[in-house]
Amino acid sequence: MSSYTLLYWPGIPGRGEYVRLAFEYTNTKYKEINVPNAFSPHLSPKGPHFAVPILQIDNGWTLSQTAAILAYLAPKLKLAGANEHEQATINQLTLTALDLSTEAHDVHHPVANALYYEDQKDEALRAAEDFKSLRIPKYLTHFETVLKGNAENNVLVGSAISTADLTLFQVLEGLLFAFPRRMGTMKKSGQYDKTFALHETVKNLKNLQHYLKSDRRNEFSMGLFRHYPELDSE
Amino acid sequence: MSSYTLLYWPGIPGRGEYVRLAFEYTNTKYKEINVPNAFSPHLSPKGPHFAVPILQIDNGWTLSQTAAILAYLAPKLKLAGANEHEQATINQLTLTALDLSTEAHDVHHPVANALYYEDQKDEALRAAEDFKSLRIPKYLTHFETVLKGNAENNVLVGSAISTADLTLFQVLEGLLFAFPRRMGTMKKSGQYDKTFALHETVKNLKNLQHYLKSDRRNEFSMGLFRHYPELDSE
Repeated sequence: MSSYTLLYWPGIPGRGEYVRLAFEYTNTKYKEINVPNAFSPHLSPKGPHFAVPILQIDNGWTLSQTAAILAYLAPKLKLAGANEHEQATINQLTLTALDLSTEAHDVHHPVANALYYEDQKDEALRAAEDFKSLRIPKYLTHFETVLKGNAENNVLVGSAISTADLTLFQVLEGLLFAFPRRMGTMKKSGQYDKTFALHETVKNLKNLQHYLKSDRRNEFSMGLFRHYPELDSE
Repeated sequence: MSSYTLLYWPGIPGRGEYVRLAFEYTNTKYKEINVPNAFSPHLSPKGPHFAVPILQIDNGWTLSQTAAILAYLAPKLKLAGANEHEQATINQLTLTALDLSTEAHDVHHPVANALYYEDQKDEALRAAEDFKSLRIPKYLTHFETVLKGNAENNVLVGSAISTADLTLFQVLEGLLFAFPRRMGTMKKSGQYDKTFALHETVKNLKNLQHYLKSDRRNEFSMGLFRHYPELDSE
């Protein structure tokens, strides 16, 4: 079996968490390096990688881009479905969940990642309105429709938990942290019951209990998902 | 051999073009459906797909998300490199090129996709400053570094053209259209010679000549890449 090392920022779940959940759920051993100096030689503009997370395999070859890491790992960790079509669809839905994750980030950084939130707060307030009223419902309706199409299994694709389910779970975790009032309204509406049920299912997976309750799991703070009360509303 | 049908908006290259180039370069037969009514049942919030492009295979199964479509097609069209590591790295770099494509779009739509450009022009002017001064150089330096690491081959990964090269080519085409003055400065600097050379290489690929010169190739207009002179500068 390969040895895996995840290179990621310290102290935030961020995009590293999507990879961690795949390892944790499948009881796959991995190490982490959270010391930026240790992975900065790999990073842009110098390195072959544009951003973390970076996965290092067997102390040699490295791979970046969250979706590429998950697509690479999924068949090895048996998180890729039962056949080629399921595998591609799991990749598709993982990418869609990651798009939602990126859009959630861009709400608090609509102008430039290089600027502070405080320097783009007016723009963020406008972006939040659109995100809450149009984008969250559009994405959740999409996932709800996918789940309804596979109602006998209560997972997004096929009959087993995949990277798509784990990724969507973490995005929902992030949205519940960042937009608790808006997500409360979404939940109460009853229109997204299967989506919120999937969130509960993953949260209660036996294999994840130890990790989710450990202090190895970083809490949300100033990363991808941020709670600015002024951006949230019912 | 499978039969492929690409479902995409009419009249713009958009994200459909990344898939078209893979088909065209490999002389793979495909059909297109560009009538929104024909693919709207598949689309969010109703359908199993969040957005076009959607690939329909053998008149049955469908797949969406540009990167998922390309990752699915790449090994079938021999655009996935020579082994598993090259395949994963090609997926990684394709995703990074697509991120640049999305960032280029978000420059003219920083607040909300649902709003007109004219309603977010002030924010777009601010976003363009960051995109031109930081993001374009950061991405191009990244791709330049990758190309330098594979200097004997003049492609991003391995020794043959892959989806990563075709995708980066199209993103560069889009940037040259949207930000001609800024890209002119980038080219003149001499710091990105391998990246611009790759653009030329793909542009001159024998297999692509017929398509690139045909009227089937949509010109850039009001899609992902837009030329607003006020957003461009040297």
